[in-house]
Amino acid sequence: MSSERRPSFLAEHLDRLAGTHLRELLKDAARGKRLRHRLGPILLDLSRQKLDQSALDALGAHVEASGWQAARDAMFAGEAINTSEDRPVLHTALRASGSQLPSAAPRDALKEIAQTLQRIDALTKAVELGDATAFGVAPGITDIVNIGIGGSDLGPRLAVRALTPYHVPGLRSHFLTNVDGQSAYELMHQLDPRRTLVIVVSKTFTTQETLLNGNVMRDWISRAYDGDNAAVSRHFLAVSANVAEAEKWGVPAAQVYPMWDFVGGRFSVWSAVGLSLALSIGSYNFHQFLKGAALVDDHFRSAAWSENLPVLLSLVEYWNRDAQGRGSRAVIPYADLLTDLTSYLQQLEMESLGKQVTKQGQPVAQPTSAVVWGSVGTNAQHAYFQSLHQGTDTVPLEFIGVVKPAHDLTANHEALLSNLLAQAAALALGKTFDEALAEAKSGSDEERRVLAAQRTFPGDRPSTVMLLDALTPESLGALIALYEHKVFMLGHLWGINAFDQWGVELGKSIARQILPALDESGAKSVAGLDASTQALIEVIRERRKV
Amino acid sequence: MSSERRPSFLAEHLDRLAGTHLRELLKDAARGKRLRHRLGPILLDLSRQKLDQSALDALGAHVEASGWQAARDAMFAGEAINTSEDRPVLHTALRASGSQLPSAAPRDALKEIAQTLQRIDALTKAVELGDATAFGVAPGITDIVNIGIGGSDLGPRLAVRALTPYHVPGLRSHFLTNVDGQSAYELMHQLDPRRTLVIVVSKTFTTQETLLNGNVMRDWISRAYDGDNAAVSRHFLAVSANVAEAEKWGVPAAQVYPMWDFVGGRFSVWSAVGLSLALSIGSYNFHQFLKGAALVDDHFRSAAWSENLPVLLSLVEYWNRDAQGRGSRAVIPYADLLTDLTSYLQQLEMESLGKQVTKQGQPVAQPTSAVVWGSVGTNAQHAYFQSLHQGTDTVPLEFIGVVKPAHDLTANHEALLSNLLAQAAALALGKTFDEALAEAKSGSDEERRVLAAQRTFPGDRPSTVMLLDALTPESLGALIALYEHKVFMLGHLWGINAFDQWGVELGKSIARQILPALDESGAKSVAGLDASTQALIEVIRERRKV
Repeated sequence: MSSERRPSFLAEHLDRLAGTHLRELLKDAARGKRLRHRLGPILLDLSRQKLDQSALDALGAHVEASGWQAARDAMFAGEAINTSEDRPVLHTALRASGSQLPSAAPRDALKEIAQTLQRIDALTKAVELGDATAFGVAPGITDIVNIGIGGSDLGPRLAVRALTPYHVPGLRSHFLTNVDGQSAYELMHQLDPRRTLVIVVSKTFTTQETLLNGNVMRDWISRAYDGDNAAVSRHFLAVSANVAEAEKWGVPAAQVYPMWDFVGGRFSVWSAVGLSLALSIGSYNFHQFLKGAALVDDHFRSAAWSENLPVLLSLVEYWNRDAQGRGSRAVIPYADLLTDLTSYLQQLEMESLGKQVTKQGQPVAQPTSAVVWGSVGTNAQHAYFQSLHQGTDTVPLEFIGVVKPAHDLTANHEALLSNLLAQAAALALGKTFDEALAEAKSGSDEERRVLAAQRTFPGDRPSTVMLLDALTPESLGALIALYEHKVFMLGHLWGINAFDQWGVELGKSIARQILPALDESGAKSVAGLDASTQALIEVIRERRKV
Repeated sequence: MSSERRPSFLAEHLDRLAGTHLRELLKDAARGKRLRHRLGPILLDLSRQKLDQSALDALGAHVEASGWQAARDAMFAGEAINTSEDRPVLHTALRASGSQLPSAAPRDALKEIAQTLQRIDALTKAVELGDATAFGVAPGITDIVNIGIGGSDLGPRLAVRALTPYHVPGLRSHFLTNVDGQSAYELMHQLDPRRTLVIVVSKTFTTQETLLNGNVMRDWISRAYDGDNAAVSRHFLAVSANVAEAEKWGVPAAQVYPMWDFVGGRFSVWSAVGLSLALSIGSYNFHQFLKGAALVDDHFRSAAWSENLPVLLSLVEYWNRDAQGRGSRAVIPYADLLTDLTSYLQQLEMESLGKQVTKQGQPVAQPTSAVVWGSVGTNAQHAYFQSLHQGTDTVPLEFIGVVKPAHDLTANHEALLSNLLAQAAALALGKTFDEALAEAKSGSDEERRVLAAQRTFPGDRPSTVMLLDALTPESLGALIALYEHKVFMLGHLWGINAFDQWGVELGKSIARQILPALDESGAKSVAGLDASTQALIEVIRERRKV
């Protein structure tokens, strides 16, 4: 990134800190007070970020001058802040029931939400008790398949896996997402169609991937009932805004749960999109999940910037991305149960913030969303941490740990936590050439020098640590809401609309042009497509005959 | 990246191409001839990379002047090219049996490899026939658990999942990796200890994660046999260079399969580290897998740079990374069976190439390994492709597709392939502001302008497409070997040692210091650790009592 795009108000701080190693900054014991914060079950430690109190104050002055409180309140109040689609953004209203503060959301939205939550509760309790026939569901269900993609998949998938210890006994959950037929094919060989409940999640009920997979599953269940449509329909629920289309497809209207224009897909796990989650963990735990998010909502609405965790997270990201010029951030949960957190955050952050024009249609002044990537530790240590420690680029990291595990394998858990802490320390502190040289005992001076150079760690690499007391419905809800509000703040700071996603449209429309040319008969002409696409279509036509 | 670090020999090409959109470059029909190549079951299309024939020739002249053939031959011949550890690098010798060219590897290495392959074959055939008691294995095995981390996990994991359609019936594979006890805990609840065969994979047999998980599984199996050690030992195999340690731990020497110093972990799936793969797909298919890699070895050893797929891949990466300054590359397989390819490549590339000093201990002249990230399409389209299309940074992509699926859900597969092709086209071509404006039908001029700005796609974003005829043991072997040799070439071009990994050491040694302070008793002092680490240890001690 060229230096002229760096925010000028941060220039002096960048210059001042350029020559100061994190090793030095960490000697200031007072850092912790400003950079370490607790919110309910979450401890957030920003003390290994490469900024000092003065830089933090400059960021704070910037955000205070930005009118962030008014922007935040406009979201909570249901103003149409998704301007390009002229829609309110009301995912916070979905968990208003768990809030201590009175909701500012429109009454009609709150009413619809409450009614839907009651429907989810009633269905969930019935399934838990083993008889949901009153809700149109066949008896004897043992497996639930959620069919959805993007926001209709990633949230429930993350939460269902993360909350494995809370699962209702006797009910397994599966997620069918990709249009690749392999997964559907494998699921059909694994499950019993007469004991499977399929939840088809699509706002428009026209999503290509979801409908193709839905068709495959419907045919499979239909074969088990010799084509008896009434029997088949008892194996399907839908979550959609398009009741008519769902009904036409085969889900009775009473089995369709709503989606609303005021909730975006990537913010929708708190709604009926979370139905598979609610069924999996039961009604009480689903409400605890909402309550955890509401705790963060209340905090975000009331805390000053310097104590406000989502605001602080956004300022650190702004610093790393726009002042330091970092192109990516690695998210490393030290918890197998949080395996899907990174892919969840990829969507939440990159789909929300990967924009290059402002709400007013002007080019943005600074780089927007970094690449979000990563995977669970300690696995990641044995894969790509080499590059994070000794590569040429600095990649800020985010470590997420869990203090109390859901099992009794204590030795494993202490090894896990010690590794998390050690990585954050090693990345910040590093090891100097002289330290490495002192360790190189044998060989000539030149050999020792060469080896020491390769065993030197530059350090000075920033990271954030988050520690959850335990992985519970409440702490998971709080963690997700923390990221949601961080994303809101970055959208605000960058002046972009974090709630639309026009960038997904072009590929879809080109795919519609290409599909007929791939037809088995190969009859359709490829004319009109670019030369590379034509050549690849020819390859596909030719090689599938081999 | 500052411009002075860009290779000067590419400056004129960068300048010339800076003003030319990929849309224009793609009009040159002759591009395909230079940039599209077939090697056995793989079609490689580089035509959407942002370079022209003249830039490619400059890269070719650079690599030709670098002595790459001599460096390559030194690797195949077993010279000690892993200089910091003074070791040869002989993963290619592991598949020499499938090669058409005579092997240049040392005879004693080839002999050891052949003997081990015979042991693997014999064991695999016995397990397939249902009685491997002659090899020390208990009868009635239904589940295999591979315990390993990093290179002892990622290769077998990738290949076992990718080759699902080739699995031996009645034998399931599992991978236990993370030191997080959750996965071990879940496995023990899922499997029958008397029908489980555990393969412990660790070169030194001292890897913390692997041994902790091994201990948990051993205790679990031991409980099923009331502590009868002889019975327990029939449920374990080891893959290790440390036979004595494995034996002490409880695996009889005859059940230990070798690892060698001349094969690095991330290049070891072709060796006994692939034992779980061989057992899973059977001996014939394991040899086909080796044969696919040997096909690429022979090609790499014999083709001129301009026809040499690994060389071309390395030059494109060099161009994107060092000339264009791209910080990351997204790998997007359009195949659920290749879900683990991205994490495999993260290790292969970032652990090999994430270095900042040359073999001689000097700072590198250019940035080395990019961040490798990604996940399967079409899922990725509904997650983060927004940012790849409309974000502020250019991220080169790599699409991998499979022409013929392993199932008969044709509509799904054609939708999958049409999306792959469409994304590559959309990223390259984009959509201009004027095109977007013409589509915006309603609203005031200003409203139309604002919306069109948000629906504009810059395009000009490069990608590579690879198409496999089908996903078979042979094509998978070829694909992996292609990446291996690309990595070798980049190490050569950057002057770094791609075969060591000193960067993993510092974190391990700090973890050893921290572990005692996390002990349940909390008795051990935290003195000597930095202030942030101390504070986090206090948080852990305090919150686990809550």
